[in-house]
Amino acid sequence: MKITIVGAGSIGTLFGSILFQAGQDVTLVEKRHEIVEAIRKNGLKIIRGADEKVLKIKITENIEEAANPDLIMFTVKSYDNVTAARDCLKIIGPNTTILTLQNGVGNYETIASIVGEERTVVGTTTFGSTQYAPGCTRGSETGSISIGEFAGGISERISTLARQLREGGFEVFEVDNVNKLIWTKLAVNVGINAIGTLCNFENLYTSKIEEAGLLQKQAVEEVAAVAKAKGLDLDYDHLYQHVVDVSESTAKNKCSMLQDVENKNLTEVLTINGAIMEEGKKLGISTPINFVLTNLVKAKETYHHR
Amino acid sequence: MKITIVGAGSIGTLFGSILFQAGQDVTLVEKRHEIVEAIRKNGLKIIRGADEKVLKIKITENIEEAANPDLIMFTVKSYDNVTAARDCLKIIGPNTTILTLQNGVGNYETIASIVGEERTVVGTTTFGSTQYAPGCTRGSETGSISIGEFAGGISERISTLARQLREGGFEVFEVDNVNKLIWTKLAVNVGINAIGTLCNFENLYTSKIEEAGLLQKQAVEEVAAVAKAKGLDLDYDHLYQHVVDVSESTAKNKCSMLQDVENKNLTEVLTINGAIMEEGKKLGISTPINFVLTNLVKAKETYHHR
Repeated sequence: MKITIVGAGSIGTLFGSILFQAGQDVTLVEKRHEIVEAIRKNGLKIIRGADEKVLKIKITENIEEAANPDLIMFTVKSYDNVTAARDCLKIIGPNTTILTLQNGVGNYETIASIVGEERTVVGTTTFGSTQYAPGCTRGSETGSISIGEFAGGISERISTLARQLREGGFEVFEVDNVNKLIWTKLAVNVGINAIGTLCNFENLYTSKIEEAGLLQKQAVEEVAAVAKAKGLDLDYDHLYQHVVDVSESTAKNKCSMLQDVENKNLTEVLTINGAIMEEGKKLGISTPINFVLTNLVKAKETYHHR
Repeated sequence: MKITIVGAGSIGTLFGSILFQAGQDVTLVEKRHEIVEAIRKNGLKIIRGADEKVLKIKITENIEEAANPDLIMFTVKSYDNVTAARDCLKIIGPNTTILTLQNGVGNYETIASIVGEERTVVGTTTFGSTQYAPGCTRGSETGSISIGEFAGGISERISTLARQLREGGFEVFEVDNVNKLIWTKLAVNVGINAIGTLCNFENLYTSKIEEAGLLQKQAVEEVAAVAKAKGLDLDYDHLYQHVVDVSESTAKNKCSMLQDVENKNLTEVLTINGAIMEEGKKLGISTPINFVLTNLVKAKETYHHR
């Protein structure tokens, strides 16, 4: 399978390393020159647990060098979706599928509006990763990918893509209601990321410290209320317990949003807490917790980019 | 005039220096051993603009050494009010007045409930200061004190105290409605402190950065709504403009709450944003902005003291 990975950040390089090691024809596409240079010169360094590898993987700044792939894995930050999706138009062939496993909501809609719903597949992943230096990534030891049709159901193309990804080295679940999964993951990100970022602490404390846990609970209640109004079948108690469980199972991690703020990068807050705020506004549901969290994180970002 | 200053933090040492230089009999009382030692050994170092002085001022850890003063200036952090007010009971004489100019609301009520309303006077100050090392304080060059009766009006004792404070080197205003002043200052602290603390930036950006300014505006709206329900006559537009003006006139300052968090000290958030949240709850007024701000700051604090 010929695969183009658009965005050689932490998750793009981790996915690239898995596919490359499974013998797939992978090209990373990345605009940040320092990452391209580092991987060209030193290879892609991947650490997963005790396993450390350096991979001579293809990388380019010019997306046209990675034209007509079977699969585009779309791994840019959500705020770059529009630019990256337009770039993808330059290389899409008749049989190209674009897969987004990005955090937050609204990613599928943005990408599909540019490249077409008939080409776009959506899902979630349980993999986590950090790029601690250009071309050097630390990724979780295990993980899986879940994919499905945005409109619901498991189509022929989902099954085909699932088979291909399994050949590419992934554990893959085909899910009937992918949006339920996306919103469940959204709840985790809503409940952990902004609070961890603003309080500057590791995931565990977002649920363990009483005042943080109170906000987490109410932020997740807002997710549940918005999801319910959208017709998604999410059980609130289960959802909230899941958020707490994840904060505990990733206890010592700093969430990606906090890493982004520390590195003075933009964050994905607008597709996480900001999405709840915006969807709530459309649906007439009050979302004050996510309103405050979103604006505080954006204010922090704006300060660094003023 | 014999004056005991309870709490030799930044504002206590600044007030002490002013009174001492005006020839008053001042004793600082402080529980933090390192501050007492530093001032005993090196004197109190006060920097105001280009003016730098070292003052041989009295300081003790034992409040009973400063018994029976004419005036107690009460300059501890608000979370120490109960302990400090109980300590004051040991030294109060028949003619002792206790003056609190502390930030936030609820300070007068707490102190007066312990030492008696007949002894307690309340006000505000425009002085600001930072203790950058034990016994070393940088204070604003100019400032004033405003005092009045908590219940309203300017009594004989207010006029007497005002005269004494003027002899002590202060510019003093006697105000008819001291609560209006306290709530105006509260609005400034509500609008600036928690946002500056959580976003980790100087006062200016709390109004200048759009997302921060939006939260500031709504946080101050909550102050105005609570104040109105309490029967205080505060004009919202004027109040909000005042908050913006202060953020601009103190542009480069880090607010005291941010300094406290950076020094891993407790903050005064419960008598500032937390007071709005609590008063709102009592009065049936929704205060979601201050609810989130309070809990985030408390979570940050708890993390440092877990």
